[in-house]
Order: sequence, then structure tokens, then C-alpha cells
Amino acid sequence: MEPTTATFFDLVRRQIPLVEARMRSTPDRHHPQLDLAIEHLLGSGGKRLRPTLTLLTARMLGTDEDKAIGLAAAIEMLHTATLVHDDLIDGSLMRRGLPTLNANLTPGATVLTGDYIFARAAHLAAGIGSLTLMEHFARTLMTIVNGELIQLFREQSGDDRQDYFDRIYAKTASLFELATMGAAILRQANQEIVEAMRRFGYQVGIAFQIVDDVLDFAGDEARVGKPLGSDLRHGLLTLPTLLYLEGRPDGATLAEAVLAGRLPEAELDGLVGAIRASDGIGRALAEARNAIAAGETQLEGMPDGPERAALRQLAQYVVDRSL
Amino acid sequence: MEPTTATFFDLVRRQIPLVEARMRSTPDRHHPQLDLAIEHLLGSGGKRLRPTLTLLTARMLGTDEDKAIGLAAAIEMLHTATLVHDDLIDGSLMRRGLPTLNANLTPGATVLTGDYIFARAAHLAAGIGSLTLMEHFARTLMTIVNGELIQLFREQSGDDRQDYFDRIYAKTASLFELATMGAAILRQANQEIVEAMRRFGYQVGIAFQIVDDVLDFAGDEARVGKPLGSDLRHGLLTLPTLLYLEGRPDGATLAEAVLAGRLPEAELDGLVGAIRASDGIGRALAEARNAIAAGETQLEGMPDGPERAALRQLAQYVVDRSL
Repeated sequence: MEPTTATFFDLVRRQIPLVEARMRSTPDRHHPQLDLAIEHLLGSGGKRLRPTLTLLTARMLGTDEDKAIGLAAAIEMLHTATLVHDDLIDGSLMRRGLPTLNANLTPGATVLTGDYIFARAAHLAAGIGSLTLMEHFARTLMTIVNGELIQLFREQSGDDRQDYFDRIYAKTASLFELATMGAAILRQANQEIVEAMRRFGYQVGIAFQIVDDVLDFAGDEARVGKPLGSDLRHGLLTLPTLLYLEGRPDGATLAEAVLAGRLPEAELDGLVGAIRASDGIGRALAEARNAIAAGETQLEGMPDGPERAALRQLAQYVVDRSL
Repeated sequence: MEPTTATFFDLVRRQIPLVEARMRSTPDRHHPQLDLAIEHLLGSGGKRLRPTLTLLTARMLGTDEDKAIGLAAAIEMLHTATLVHDDLIDGSLMRRGLPTLNANLTPGATVLTGDYIFARAAHLAAGIGSLTLMEHFARTLMTIVNGELIQLFREQSGDDRQDYFDRIYAKTASLFELATMGAAILRQANQEIVEAMRRFGYQVGIAFQIVDDVLDFAGDEARVGKPLGSDLRHGLLTLPTLLYLEGRPDGATLAEAVLAGRLPEAELDGLVGAIRASDGIGRALAEARNAIAAGETQLEGMPDGPERAALRQLAQYVVDRSL
């Protein structure tokens, strides 16, 4: 954990190990390779932002702790499963400075390990004891996978900006909103509170992904752990690129060339440099900050206390971590 | 449907299209490719034995029809998802005489399509409205995937026979038992009935897989749709082979050579011929018949009527379809 996250993280420091223990709990007899894989994935860190969102929301609203831990574990497990299949599909050999599963397993074993982790996530979700939550959980998995398929088929229709927001909703914000909304559902909170917490999670998720996409251009290459502009190099138009291209006479042509993977390396390097130097970065960050502001207004009617303050800090951290 | 199945199938003929409609029902906005994939998979047939087991059990016990249709759809969807990933992992290009998904899609798109179908299966299961059932559903998925991983890692320990029965439980019988037990759970039947219907489904599933493994040797090559002895050629020891090797002085050496994929084609052809001509076939079929008999005794305490008779016919069909 970086120092900036310390304050909001303090409140859940005792609970995160309980979430991890729930993720490790083994309800079935299974191949030892699966435990090794799960240990490797849990051990490779990650900021546990999704579980933290669930736990803080649950404490703020008074949700049963055991249910909240189950939800946090199910959500982080689902997130982990999607990463396993993503890394396989992208051929990524490293994540967070450690080898991915597919770096050491055959494709078949990686597919099945991901499937098993999906099954464990569904089992954790079923164990929470709420059909409403289970229904949202399955629907979120559909949303995430559908988003990945759309990205894989590289189809961008007319409105690129809409495509981008649809994509980052599916990829990131859908699970963030489940993390906060789910904690409210488990409290059997009224519909206004459930909806406000859904919107809060949604906006934090949108901001988180925009900042990730900004860091892909503006970050420290060593810390990001991959070449700058890697999305662009993979034919993906993210917000900084869309804002850079907006209003340029050659914008549409460039966008098409990127999508088709037709730009030679040298031109890609030039384009990445131009985007880094452009106001696309600052304008994208401003959109992330707007999302956070919109999210924070959703907290206004929530119970006052350290948890609400911590959720605000977490939201700010999501945009400040870059800077 | 073949004529032999007509009688037991008659009782559910009206309901199977309702199951298929439930599988096609689209609760989310998603990529059209996914509908094409689901249509292709549903259109490629299959005997719908698992839904038939659920529907007959539900009618026999008086389970709510809508819940039974939901369960039948969820189970067939889960079965479909596992086939999508299996065919990818095995590199199979045909199934039931039609191209597999991976014959036409990239590996990445096939992985994601399978994931989406898993998500739809979980969504269908959640929609039935029983947490107990949802818990069993997630656990069955864990069992199936774990069994595939064990098979992939090709580990057979000391007791080959035990390994074989563990494997066919995971691969087939676990979902058959969910099909029958689930219908009893949704009826909120007492524990004895739930357990008896679980055992009935288990035994039918075990028999079904043994017969499949027998047909791989003894079937009509054109009808099976792959070369005879294909399991053996892929380094897999199924019951006919285990029974053939039993008590032969060179049994252990041969088993090891098959597992290691060390037998040349000509020797494999010879071994397949020897197994076909041996009593391994008949003894394996006798074990399938024993399983069916054990399953049928579980029906003795069930409500008398056309559904119970149809379940008996279905069980008989499972072993008779080969002959």
C-alpha cells in the first residue's frame, strides 16, 4: 500500500485479511495446482480497491460483516478470474511485476484455471445468502465478458466517445458499482440508498479506468510496467487519444489507421509523444475528476462518520494516484 | 430423436421448446456474435437428456413447472459452456457433425464466448429463486472444471479404477445428479427424496459415460463421428481398456505407454482391435447395467405414474442406445 492510501485503508486493515482468507477457503477437494494458482494470484497483490469499497460501504450502512466479507471475496475472485483469461487472450506474460499464469501453464490449463476461479467466485456469491445479489453478480459477469468480446472484435461504431464509456463501464465500472451497490443490497437499504451507492461505485470505477488510461500515456514507464501508449499500440482508442484527435482535420484518418493496426512503429512513437504533450491528458484527467465529483455528491445523504470520509478519500485517491 | 427415446421423451415434448426458449432469452444487451454462437450451439442438437431428467423428475414430484424449466435451461447452458471450452482445449473442430465454435473463432473469442455462456448459466440458475440450488450449481461447476484439469494434467495415481470413476463423476455424473436432485430440491422435498433422486441421477450419469466410453471402441465409426479408440489414442484409459488390461502380465507396461503417448500408431490400432474383441466391452456394459439397476431401485419410493415409468425408460435407453 502506498502512503496516500493509508488513511482510508486503515478502517478496513483488519478486514482485508478476512476477505483473503475467505477467498482461500476451500469448499471442495481439488487439484493442488489450483491452490498454487490461487496463492500466486492472491500473492501478487493488487490494491484490493473493490473489497475496500464493499467493506467501507458495509460499515457505513451497518451491513452484516460476514455478508460484506463474502461479497468482497466474491467480487475480488471474479476480478481475478477475468484477469486470468484476459492475460491469456492478450498473451501478457507479466502483471504487477510477476509472471502471469499463462506464462507457466498451457493455454488449456489457463482456461480451466480461470473457469475454476469463476466457479469459486459464483460459489462465494451464492454463499452470501441473497438471491438479488446473486442475480446482479451473474449479470455483472455477463457485462464484463460481453465488453471484452466487443473489444476483441474491435468494432467501434459512429460515436467513439460513447463506445469508450460503454467499454470502461463493462471493463471496470460495472464491478465497482456492484461492490458498493451490493453492500447496500445486503443491508436491505431502501431503493434510494441502493441507487446512490450504485452511482457512487459507477463514478469511481469510471474515474479509475480513465486514470489508468491516462497513466498508460503519462505514467512512469517503469512503474506502469509496460511501454507507454501500449493501448494505442494494441489498436485501442482511449480517452486521451480521443480527446487529442477531436477536432484535428486528420483525426478520423488517424483513428482508422490505429484501429486497423496500420501505423508503423515510428509513427506510433510520434503519436504517443504528441498525445503526451497535448491537452488530451489534462482534459481526460478533468473528466476523471468530474466523475469523482459526481460520485461524491451521492454520498451526501449517507450516514456521517469515518466510513463516509474514507469513501471520499478513496475516491480522491483514485484520481490523485497518478500525480 | 431416435425411436427408442420416443416414449419417455413424449411426456416432455411440449416442455423442451420452453427450455430452449429460456436458454435463448436475452436479459442483457450483447454482441450479436454471442446470439449467433448460442443459436449454433442450440441448433446442433444433442439429446437434451439432462433437461429431460429434470423435467420428468419435476413432474413426478410436483415441482413448479417454471422453476423446473429454469433449472433445465441452466443445466443445459452450463453443459454447453463446458463443451465450448473443452472443444477449444482439445482442438476439436467438429461435434455432432457440425463445426465447433473454435473452428470459426479465434481462441480468445472462443474463451470469452464460453465465459459468457457460463455467466448466462449462472444467471439462469440465480433466476430460479433458490439459494440452495444456486450453491449446488456453483459447486457442480467447480467439480466439472476440477475434473477437466485433473484429466489435462494426466495424472493417474495408484488405483486406476478409482481415478476413472472420479473422472466420469466430475465429467458427467455430477451434472446428471444435479438435474434430478435439483428438481427435488425445488419441490422442497424431504431429505430422503432429494438424496434418492441424487443417487438416481448419479447412477444414470455414470452409466451414460461408461456407455459413451464403450461406444468409442465398439460403436459404428460413422455414427460416433471420430476414429474408434480415440480416447486411447489421446492417452486416456477408460473402463473397457482398464478391464482389458486387468490381470494381463503386460497390463501395467501398456497402461504406462498409453498414458505417456509412447505407443506407435500401428500398436495403437492393434490394441484398439484387441480391446474390441475382448470381454472388456461386455464387462464394461455390465457395469453400466449395474449402475442403471442401482439407480432404478432409488425410484421405488417415488410417486407411481407415467413420469416414474419414463425415468425408468430413460435409464434403460442410456444403456440400450449402443446396441
